[in-house]
Amino acid sequence: MPNRPFVDLFDRSTSRRRFLREGGLAAVVAGVATACKQEPAKAASSQAAPAASGQTGGTMGANDTSKGASELAAAQAMDAMHEKGIKAFPAKTAGLGNQLLVPRIENGVKVYDITAKKIQWETEPGHMVEAWAYNDQVPGPQIRVTSGDRVKVILHNQLPESTAIHFHGLELPNAMDGVPFITQPPVKPGESFTYEFVVPNHGSHMYHSHHNSAKQVGLGLLGAFIVEPKEKTKDDTPEVDQVFILNDGAHGYTFNGKSFPATQPIVAKLGQRVRIRFMNEGMMIHPMHLHGMHMTVIAKDGWPVPAPWKCDTLNVAPGERWDVIVHCNNPGTWAFHCHILPHAESDHGMFGMVTALVVQA
Amino acid sequence: MPNRPFVDLFDRSTSRRRFLREGGLAAVVAGVATACKQEPAKAASSQAAPAASGQTGGTMGANDTSKGASELAAAQAMDAMHEKGIKAFPAKTAGLGNQLLVPRIENGVKVYDITAKKIQWETEPGHMVEAWAYNDQVPGPQIRVTSGDRVKVILHNQLPESTAIHFHGLELPNAMDGVPFITQPPVKPGESFTYEFVVPNHGSHMYHSHHNSAKQVGLGLLGAFIVEPKEKTKDDTPEVDQVFILNDGAHGYTFNGKSFPATQPIVAKLGQRVRIRFMNEGMMIHPMHLHGMHMTVIAKDGWPVPAPWKCDTLNVAPGERWDVIVHCNNPGTWAFHCHILPHAESDHGMFGMVTALVVQA
Amino acid sequence: MPNRPFVDLFDRSTSRRRFLREGGLAAVVAGVATACKQEPAKAASSQAAPAASGQTGGTMGANDTSKGASELAAAQAMDAMHEKGIKAFPAKTAGLGNQLLVPRIENGVKVYDITAKKIQWETEPGHMVEAWAYNDQVPGPQIRVTSGDRVKVILHNQLPESTAIHFHGLELPNAMDGVPFITQPPVKPGESFTYEFVVPNHGSHMYHSHHNSAKQVGLGLLGAFIVEPKEKTKDDTPEVDQVFILNDGAHGYTFNGKSFPATQPIVAKLGQRVRIRFMNEGMMIHPMHLHGMHMTVIAKDGWPVPAPWKCDTLNVAPGERWDVIVHCNNPGTWAFHCHILPHAESDHGMFGMVTALVVQA
Repeated sequence: MPNRPFVDLFDRSTSRRRFLREGGLAAVVAGVATACKQEPAKAASSQAAPAASGQTGGTMGANDTSKGASELAAAQAMDAMHEKGIKAFPAKTAGLGNQLLVPRIENGVKVYDITAKKIQWETEPGHMVEAWAYNDQVPGPQIRVTSGDRVKVILHNQLPESTAIHFHGLELPNAMDGVPFITQPPVKPGESFTYEFVVPNHGSHMYHSHHNSAKQVGLGLLGAFIVEPKEKTKDDTPEVDQVFILNDGAHGYTFNGKSFPATQPIVAKLGQRVRIRFMNEGMMIHPMHLHGMHMTVIAKDGWPVPAPWKCDTLNVAPGERWDVIVHCNNPGTWAFHCHILPHAESDHGMFGMVTALVVQA
Repeated sequence: MPNRPFVDLFDRSTSRRRFLREGGLAAVVAGVATACKQEPAKAASSQAAPAASGQTGGTMGANDTSKGASELAAAQAMDAMHEKGIKAFPAKTAGLGNQLLVPRIENGVKVYDITAKKIQWETEPGHMVEAWAYNDQVPGPQIRVTSGDRVKVILHNQLPESTAIHFHGLELPNAMDGVPFITQPPVKPGESFTYEFVVPNHGSHMYHSHHNSAKQVGLGLLGAFIVEPKEKTKDDTPEVDQVFILNDGAHGYTFNGKSFPATQPIVAKLGQRVRIRFMNEGMMIHPMHLHGMHMTVIAKDGWPVPAPWKCDTLNVAPGERWDVIVHCNNPGTWAFHCHILPHAESDHGMFGMVTALVVQA
Repeated sequence: MPNRPFVDLFDRSTSRRRFLREGGLAAVVAGVATACKQEPAKAASSQAAPAASGQTGGTMGANDTSKGASELAAAQAMDAMHEKGIKAFPAKTAGLGNQLLVPRIENGVKVYDITAKKIQWETEPGHMVEAWAYNDQVPGPQIRVTSGDRVKVILHNQLPESTAIHFHGLELPNAMDGVPFITQPPVKPGESFTYEFVVPNHGSHMYHSHHNSAKQVGLGLLGAFIVEPKEKTKDDTPEVDQVFILNDGAHGYTFNGKSFPATQPIVAKLGQRVRIRFMNEGMMIHPMHLHGMHMTVIAKDGWPVPAPWKCDTLNVAPGERWDVIVHCNNPGTWAFHCHILPHAESDHGMFGMVTALVVQA
């Protein structure tokens, strides 16, 4: 495409802007367009930089290699598929997992009813999968309590199999550990079982099935069990507190039960602190890569790390939880994805384990 | 199963107790039954809690969903398979790996004879595999020395292939490194080779084949080489010191050469400290999850970590060693398994990478 | 092979030496032969040690098991394949990746021209693969700048697909982040795009395609982007500074674009400090194991770790960078490989992810 007129490039550039405004992402990045315009101030200015630089912060130019028309058409067809996916983000689907579950209080005890049953779950627009879910959500509803709370979790089993709940990370009395035939009988179809305990160690924990678990957790019987400390530190009161559950089982590559473009972006304002609680409920590692800003690791499996450390790619293995803080000091829409690239992109565009952290100026 | 009589539930609960008493696990958990009865004191007491709570620390109840008889039968058949596996734990098999090898002393040198040969190895009851083993054990016998010791390891090769021993983690003179064609000739079938050295850096190390190693280590030519420091700290004198070798090759998913239910539980008394030396000799990561208590990581590859950190799920990659301390402050039989769930459980019950830490009150 | 004459063993031992002298490795290990001779001083001396000990630091001996002639022939045939590979190391191939790219300076801006195009790439002798390469190199040329530098990277796309460059780890303004349809339009075949910025956070970073990336990065569109700090510490001025890019895609298991025996050894003199900058551009973890000496981890993703820690096996996940220092205090040729053994060795000998650290006395 030699001698491509500049206006054409500019058109494409503005088309992109138009897309961002019209697409689903537009709403969440409203504050960002301005920020983008400010960016060139940070970039090296140079007399060599053409005028377009001011538009995108970068410069598109033609070069001297001729390409065949059919090759270019194929390339554009591929680009169109990629663009379509991003334009759809964040796509609407039926159902949202990880919704905060408000307990009922009985005699000072926080009581949570958790019903396990088979449902249909939409992981991305039009893609329905069979899920075994807690309270019709994948991940199950978020339980959030404080160390020392008296809690009762009543599991109602409406599944065709027996099940049980293990509170992964909580240091409970043995009888509450949720492992059938070791700490309790299995909870058969149609039965219920009540777990009751005083909430012990704080941190980012999980609850999930511990019976036929490769299948049951794989199908969705999992959720976040967040324990706040009695005395909160600065890291316990961030502006944004985000549970981020990774999975890779029967439902494909998902974040909080959804695949791109149906994943939910994390949205913060410039200067805010975002706490992300990564939890891996899958069978594979997922090294999570954030663009544009680093993550400061503050806790492993709920335990504060002795010396916080920084990274931009955090390897999260099955069963692990990692808490990080992101200081949102860089405005824009930042890709946030698993860096095992086949979990995130194909010839047909981004999919699976992709979302964005949007920092609004 | 509506209106299920309470006595039925109680029966099942006591059946479980009876099982634990009669099954193989009963012997090691003798002290635990009492502890279980004490647990409810830790749990939140509530007027709403039914009487059964005192039995298990939890409450089994019926709920209002009717289930078909055939579905329930299928669920019970699955439960029976799961129960059978747990009832069999710890199952007896022929042969135990990782047995301490007592050296003979010659002129102040600790001399270890290691014979590599092909054997049959029972990984779980009735499941025999071909193994290439050191001294008829998988893992090979445990070598345990102290920094500064003068050591001779005499490898006798009775295999159909050449071989050699690499002392993984030990900072030896190059000629003792055990890599055929780089540091020594291969040790051919029928030959022997003597490694001799002053033991250098302490820590949890390994010895294994470094010739055609994907096959030879995969078949079992591996063992623990523990080097005690000259001056011991508190962490070097725990009540229980457990080598824990993970593998996933030709022999399936194993801990110290055995698959559940033939894996060996770790047994400690309440208040004791258990040091676990994880070593991965396989091809995959294994995030090891301990229930009920956390692990404090004290060393990586034999080197003390600058600041010990806590976790309940520790990702162990091939070739890595991680030393952890568990303060056994929570009585009970605690599941301890790889959290890649398909390495630990199937429709037929737990298998492979599952064991238990039993804390006796 | 009972009653094998000692002279035979000695011959084989010297044959190995002859091989090392005649083979490709000979040139780089010139200083090592002497070191090997010094090694026995470190080893435990013992009256029981036969004379051969002085030759190799170890002792080869016959043992009492007879082996069939055909079995031994098979073993020797396997050994010959293993020997052949090591003898060939480091094997010459066409093309070397990761070559330092000298920028041209325009108005105080460092300008880098990066041309992406399809080439043929030789990963090991005679094995040609299709690569999508930057400046005809896999990995692409190494860009090495200093924090605060003004930089322009001009991407020229001569590929049959659109592409874009993401500067992985650099905290750039959003418009320079290189994600098509989020931060810029895709750079179509025949077009160019200029990235310009002031270099932000220092450390070991990467640049690679972020468009159709599972394919494009898999085929080779990747390279190291090293940012030196403005004020250098001791760790920033090691005698040897080595980028070490791991990959496992369409090109097989590679280090810096080459498979053993075409991988390049790292060569240092006794007492020197080697800094290794691991970067994983593949889809799998690679736990890198160094023989003979430990590695001190000093940075993760370019960020200094709060407390350096030691290891001999470092698990590097996709997208991660880890910087380590090796104090070369142990002379010899040390195997250095991924410890997922099937990535490094087969019945046919070492291959893929194997190289050596040569410490010359």
